[in-house]
Amino acid sequence: MSQDNKKPWGGRFQGKTHHFIESFTASVDFDSRLGEVDAICSQAHAKTLLDAEIITEIEHQQLVNGLDTIIEEIREHKFNWRTDLEDVHMNIESRLVELIGEPALKLHTARSRNDQVTSTFKVFLMRSAAELTNSLRNLQEHILDKASKHVETIMPGMTHLQVAQPIVFGHHLMAWFEMFDRDLSRLEDWHKRTNSSPMGVAALAGTSFPLNRDLFKETLGFDEVTRNSVDSVSDRDYAIEFVSVLSLLIVHLSRVCEEIVLWASPAFDLIDLPDELCTGSSIMPQKKNPDVAELIRGKSGRVIGSLMSLLVTLKGQPLAYNRDNQEDKEAVFDAFDTTFSSVCAMSVLIEGMEPKESRMYALGGTGYPTATDMADWLVRQGTPFRSAHAIVGRAVALAEEKGVPLEALSLDELKQLSDQFEDSVFACLTLEGSVKSRITVGGTAPDLVRQAIVEAREKLAKAES
Amino acid sequence: MSQDNKKPWGGRFQGKTHHFIESFTASVDFDSRLGEVDAICSQAHAKTLLDAEIITEIEHQQLVNGLDTIIEEIREHKFNWRTDLEDVHMNIESRLVELIGEPALKLHTARSRNDQVTSTFKVFLMRSAAELTNSLRNLQEHILDKASKHVETIMPGMTHLQVAQPIVFGHHLMAWFEMFDRDLSRLEDWHKRTNSSPMGVAALAGTSFPLNRDLFKETLGFDEVTRNSVDSVSDRDYAIEFVSVLSLLIVHLSRVCEEIVLWASPAFDLIDLPDELCTGSSIMPQKKNPDVAELIRGKSGRVIGSLMSLLVTLKGQPLAYNRDNQEDKEAVFDAFDTTFSSVCAMSVLIEGMEPKESRMYALGGTGYPTATDMADWLVRQGTPFRSAHAIVGRAVALAEEKGVPLEALSLDELKQLSDQFEDSVFACLTLEGSVKSRITVGGTAPDLVRQAIVEAREKLAKAES
Amino acid sequence: MSQDNKKPWGGRFQGKTHHFIESFTASVDFDSRLGEVDAICSQAHAKTLLDAEIITEIEHQQLVNGLDTIIEEIREHKFNWRTDLEDVHMNIESRLVELIGEPALKLHTARSRNDQVTSTFKVFLMRSAAELTNSLRNLQEHILDKASKHVETIMPGMTHLQVAQPIVFGHHLMAWFEMFDRDLSRLEDWHKRTNSSPMGVAALAGTSFPLNRDLFKETLGFDEVTRNSVDSVSDRDYAIEFVSVLSLLIVHLSRVCEEIVLWASPAFDLIDLPDELCTGSSIMPQKKNPDVAELIRGKSGRVIGSLMSLLVTLKGQPLAYNRDNQEDKEAVFDAFDTTFSSVCAMSVLIEGMEPKESRMYALGGTGYPTATDMADWLVRQGTPFRSAHAIVGRAVALAEEKGVPLEALSLDELKQLSDQFEDSVFACLTLEGSVKSRITVGGTAPDLVRQAIVEAREKLAKAES
Amino acid sequence: MSQDNKKPWGGRFQGKTHHFIESFTASVDFDSRLGEVDAICSQAHAKTLLDAEIITEIEHQQLVNGLDTIIEEIREHKFNWRTDLEDVHMNIESRLVELIGEPALKLHTARSRNDQVTSTFKVFLMRSAAELTNSLRNLQEHILDKASKHVETIMPGMTHLQVAQPIVFGHHLMAWFEMFDRDLSRLEDWHKRTNSSPMGVAALAGTSFPLNRDLFKETLGFDEVTRNSVDSVSDRDYAIEFVSVLSLLIVHLSRVCEEIVLWASPAFDLIDLPDELCTGSSIMPQKKNPDVAELIRGKSGRVIGSLMSLLVTLKGQPLAYNRDNQEDKEAVFDAFDTTFSSVCAMSVLIEGMEPKESRMYALGGTGYPTATDMADWLVRQGTPFRSAHAIVGRAVALAEEKGVPLEALSLDELKQLSDQFEDSVFACLTLEGSVKSRITVGGTAPDLVRQAIVEAREKLAKAES
Repeated sequence: MSQDNKKPWGGRFQGKTHHFIESFTASVDFDSRLGEVDAICSQAHAKTLLDAEIITEIEHQQLVNGLDTIIEEIREHKFNWRTDLEDVHMNIESRLVELIGEPALKLHTARSRNDQVTSTFKVFLMRSAAELTNSLRNLQEHILDKASKHVETIMPGMTHLQVAQPIVFGHHLMAWFEMFDRDLSRLEDWHKRTNSSPMGVAALAGTSFPLNRDLFKETLGFDEVTRNSVDSVSDRDYAIEFVSVLSLLIVHLSRVCEEIVLWASPAFDLIDLPDELCTGSSIMPQKKNPDVAELIRGKSGRVIGSLMSLLVTLKGQPLAYNRDNQEDKEAVFDAFDTTFSSVCAMSVLIEGMEPKESRMYALGGTGYPTATDMADWLVRQGTPFRSAHAIVGRAVALAEEKGVPLEALSLDELKQLSDQFEDSVFACLTLEGSVKSRITVGGTAPDLVRQAIVEAREKLAKAES
Repeated sequence: MSQDNKKPWGGRFQGKTHHFIESFTASVDFDSRLGEVDAICSQAHAKTLLDAEIITEIEHQQLVNGLDTIIEEIREHKFNWRTDLEDVHMNIESRLVELIGEPALKLHTARSRNDQVTSTFKVFLMRSAAELTNSLRNLQEHILDKASKHVETIMPGMTHLQVAQPIVFGHHLMAWFEMFDRDLSRLEDWHKRTNSSPMGVAALAGTSFPLNRDLFKETLGFDEVTRNSVDSVSDRDYAIEFVSVLSLLIVHLSRVCEEIVLWASPAFDLIDLPDELCTGSSIMPQKKNPDVAELIRGKSGRVIGSLMSLLVTLKGQPLAYNRDNQEDKEAVFDAFDTTFSSVCAMSVLIEGMEPKESRMYALGGTGYPTATDMADWLVRQGTPFRSAHAIVGRAVALAEEKGVPLEALSLDELKQLSDQFEDSVFACLTLEGSVKSRITVGGTAPDLVRQAIVEAREKLAKAES
Repeated sequence: MSQDNKKPWGGRFQGKTHHFIESFTASVDFDSRLGEVDAICSQAHAKTLLDAEIITEIEHQQLVNGLDTIIEEIREHKFNWRTDLEDVHMNIESRLVELIGEPALKLHTARSRNDQVTSTFKVFLMRSAAELTNSLRNLQEHILDKASKHVETIMPGMTHLQVAQPIVFGHHLMAWFEMFDRDLSRLEDWHKRTNSSPMGVAALAGTSFPLNRDLFKETLGFDEVTRNSVDSVSDRDYAIEFVSVLSLLIVHLSRVCEEIVLWASPAFDLIDLPDELCTGSSIMPQKKNPDVAELIRGKSGRVIGSLMSLLVTLKGQPLAYNRDNQEDKEAVFDAFDTTFSSVCAMSVLIEGMEPKESRMYALGGTGYPTATDMADWLVRQGTPFRSAHAIVGRAVALAEEKGVPLEALSLDELKQLSDQFEDSVFACLTLEGSVKSRITVGGTAPDLVRQAIVEAREKLAKAES
Repeated sequence: MSQDNKKPWGGRFQGKTHHFIESFTASVDFDSRLGEVDAICSQAHAKTLLDAEIITEIEHQQLVNGLDTIIEEIREHKFNWRTDLEDVHMNIESRLVELIGEPALKLHTARSRNDQVTSTFKVFLMRSAAELTNSLRNLQEHILDKASKHVETIMPGMTHLQVAQPIVFGHHLMAWFEMFDRDLSRLEDWHKRTNSSPMGVAALAGTSFPLNRDLFKETLGFDEVTRNSVDSVSDRDYAIEFVSVLSLLIVHLSRVCEEIVLWASPAFDLIDLPDELCTGSSIMPQKKNPDVAELIRGKSGRVIGSLMSLLVTLKGQPLAYNRDNQEDKEAVFDAFDTTFSSVCAMSVLIEGMEPKESRMYALGGTGYPTATDMADWLVRQGTPFRSAHAIVGRAVALAEEKGVPLEALSLDELKQLSDQFEDSVFACLTLEGSVKSRITVGGTAPDLVRQAIVEAREKLAKAES
């Protein structure tokens, strides 16, 4: 008989597991996080075994009760996780044997860790995704609240970090809203694709016991069961796609943070961040740093790294299950934790951030931002746009040479560039006029922004109901 | 006046563009690939300008005709792409001026390269995705054809590259089918999210001309228009998500190729590849290498690299448009080309690959692959599974020590391990019996595999119709 | 006065730090790992302050003693790390104030966390690199031990996973030796470039106190001091380059593991792994899986992910210090831990792995592996190589058709392909003969392999001395 | 006989290569770039064959002459590259047969494409690295030229994008110099490790011909020959390490560009870029965008992507050569081209960029940048630094509340915070005074910067000589 009787799989083995190797290969340090869900899945599996008459009513009840005790122990941090029992599954099975004896030895009938781990992981991730969805909607609400206060606050719309055209701050915030809206849509599609139950395919070939796989599916709330047993245990698409979605989401957060860091810089000076969201310097007494935004930006690399890690781990594996896949969990957990806490931090940031309206207006007027309006005015007088662009380009060059804004050029000076110029051109050169004129769908005209906020609120309310 | 009159944006500039910098910043080498779609988008924009009464019926017709000529020139490789004109858009506009004169100068009214490039890119990618979808369905058909011939061909089902349990070859192939099915589903969701038209938001703020953005949307077949002008020009989610989808797809191809390379190795010797899909060695006259599979596997790194590249490029950008985004195109083009040609090559490979049935059967029987069946048999006699697992583990250890298969152990030897063993246990130890017994949904029993193929064919036919 | 008096930088702040944000931005959970080194660096800084007459002899001694106490507390896991004190530096400074009072308030004179953290991090990584170097040399010794036992053990040399030419197992192992030798060389170069002390540049500009930076340098064993204060605090090249080196190292481990997994598969069956290095299946009683090798292979993705993470985090940062950089530590720690433990596990694997010599020989003879020898023989008779290659290619085709090895073709059959064939050709077709003939430097002839092992041992002994 | 007689390896093959597969697997589109170096390597191999008496003096001369003709054809773009001949090596060999007949058939004696391609690739990359080294030194010279003009130009030293302490512009530029200096050092180490000749190991086992591998080594200027034949053909460390070095280099460029883009923004307004280095907008006539800097920043993602790609491609490959490695070339070529042209563009940028000195000074004085100087002053009066930091923090809070700079607080106000304040404190609060006081090695004091520039020039001159 095996000298290594602790391992549930130890029957055929003559030697004990090497001590260092035991801890090198153990996963319980991180997969214990799946403990509660694993126990719940085992309860659903017990129900299937009862239905297939593999266990009796009494045994079923013993299993359910024993697993309830374990769930309780896990929740109260009283469960004693043991590295020598490798992983979350073997830890829970061993504890169950301690608690209820022989019926526990029947629980692993018609299942393998291969279908068990992927079922548990899927359920866990769908729960995590639901939390993330809530936090994202919360973030969107903070954006809407802030945007609705700044529908007429003019700021510089920038491209290439140059002042391009004036927009309103609420409109800029609504661009952020749209980014996160796509993230929500991706999470939803991910859920749809993830939501099929692999339980019952056992090691990779299916099982010879007459399991009704629909029972497990229904108990855990899956939409369907997976169609191919080999694919069921080798598939980790759901983990990779989940982290892909998180990567794009945190890239969005990173872009927003890039803006916040810029705006908080004295060079831009467009926003105020409250003290409680900033930290100081150990040497420079005057410093007040937008650390939260910088940190989220820095964390985006981490999630992208996890995505790369998962793609690399999967890319060369033959079917069906290989131990390489043990590496899937930490990357996903870390990507989720990082993204989730970053979304929460972003909500706090957006709530606390206040625009400095007069500075926004001043910077918004720097660098001839209504030159396009002047060109459009010329077009309305009959000049082809490309010619109008060239004429205004020369007007800008002239104004720059004189060190004055466009509206400070005299009509005479303008007329030397094009005889179509008239006095009425100056009316279109104000920031307010420019902003109000952007009236095509999606434009920055305050009325459109107001309407966009209303529609966004309705959409969000509908999604949350 | 500017000395640099070639540049459509040159009005305000005093100096010519530095020669090396001109070629460093030019994108026409690769974005000329968008030429045809760009011209079609310009035709749709012209229609919008006509509707807004910015151009006349006659001018509209001149623009459409001029652009038709350009499309023709591009298709026939007669278009003269010029690096000094920077990009595909300026090249086409310049040529249009040559062809039709003044009306061409009006085309860029109420649009910017910012909304133009993202519209063009979206349309181009949706066309590419449609091609990829077709090639993937074609690949699935090849899989179904091959699978339907091998519903009873027994092979070793492997985990950890060890023989685990016998399965049928058709079932293994259907696991591949499922992988590509998820890829198709992801492409579909991507399309849904990409399919909103940004045209009409101009530089970033919207335009002051009364454009009906729905006209462009309908002409190009978009489902909706984008909701926020700033987001419309800064968004590159569609490019990143597209390459995410491609990455997962080529990881699937890479896993399949890993299997093909293994199976073609004399160590496995499970398949024959036709000469026409192999190459030889320059020094070793006997070599016949599965190069195509190796190469696809190698190319997976390339697509993952492009995904990385795009995430990095986007992650630190403030809104709205920055020139960094010029780098989005080559990565996406390369990822698409690589994935598309790899899918095509995979179809050829699967069509040509033939299983060596007797070797498959022999390797399928190596290493006690029906040990689970023996344990399941004991469970049916009343032994709890975990105890049955341990008993069979010891039976395997005994058989290994004696150098014989499980079924060669005597009943007496087995009875020493458990008194529940009876003669009938030997019946469940054949590969055929094992395979037939896997009858839960998704299992490898031939009848289930047959049915899975039928359902897959129906699903595919429906998708293609 | 600030209400937030716990923060050493809190003077100018009116509000307390937001609770969630406090834990979001805190790094002490992971950077406490730097604790001991941080305290040692502080002792060296105290020495510099004494030298600059900023503190007295007595204060210096108090600081050194207080820090000694802290080092002791950290080593014995009695140090109370507090999240509200943000990071390792502030925790240690606060504890020092508790322990020795006012002199502790002088310690941060003429330094900033910016130069402190990068100095500490560098010292910590150089210590880690030294550990890794030792473990790599240990791995190389295991390789040499195993190789020296198998200088004449013939195995299939493979390209494209096809049998190419016979080689000896010891030679193959020496290829692994070379891979790790380059890793050692890269670690050495990394150390050379890392080994300059940034301490004394303070926040980013240098300090107004007359510090002798050489004192810190010498105390900690750096070779030189950094040359530019701004670069000193913004530079994280050493972290990225370190993880680059680790990435290549673990890619090497992954390649070796790919081979071990293949060889342990019953399809190859080239090696035996001891039970103590394998694990079993929860469902299949017969399984014995090469988990350690699979797991190392899986972990390679993780280190590559960390490298990507670091590159992303750095790539968009303006100088000098930004909080994004807080994210550098966990990625580096994780990459180091993963690589270090994988190197150790690999040593155990190589020690335990035993080649199955007869199977190696048999597979080594499969697939006409001496065809090149036949072609070379023809060259010696005067046939140009390219023609000889074609002739032997046809001989292989003939042998394959007949299902026999090359040496089973008759001389008559061969003469029909080339009249230069003579009886003596058969002598060059044995595996032993082929292997012995590879006598150019670096070849697989057993005498050369023996010599290579001797030279490698000498090199290693010299490096370790 | 084979029907596919065009392939030099076609002897054993019955079927022609599938047409699509032929182009899918062909590499000549990109590896023709190696043509000239490949021909030069073949000349060196011919010399080795002559020495080994495998070819005659006359044949040797014919080979050399034929290859000279081919080199000429390649240089003059007259060489006819054929996809059906797969790769650069087979194209050149075929052309050689056309040119000189039978002796060409002897050239491939005692070599394989495996050792040929890796030798050629190494030589090519070492030449490329030399070009890159030159361009980097040229960049450093431009930095030195610019820095030496701005040793006293005060600018804001920033951390967290907040004004931290004043520094001089020349000092900031010298931080860039240091970054590129480490890149040069890495290139040098890479060269050292790459510089060993693999030629002569043939397919993977060595060759049976008595080659003197040192001949090839010396002809091509390698330092040594590789030590293990299997490693020689499977090693691609040099490609990966090269792209690692490039990645870090382009991350440096990206960081510099991030600063340039910021400084060129009207919010910062710290530099002027000449028109010839900027481009305009197609819609906004006033725009002048720092495209070159944005583009380099965007390109950093591309090189990082290539690194990822290479690591992925290598990570799962068993030894020795696999076709996956064909994918190594394009990634390396693209990474080199991208980095090389970016370095050149950066030189142009730095040469053209002019600081706006008065704006630099003004922004440098924003936000209490001499608060540290005030704290240091208090330390000199005997206040412990941590207490001084708190006192000055409160002074900053007071000044902020009053909306004045630190030096505008009255002595009375200061005395309320600490009775150590005296009139002399105000002297240390000027930007000039602050900068001049940073006199520890590496600090920003103008005299130190001057000296650093001199030393850098000397170092550079020495490296170039």
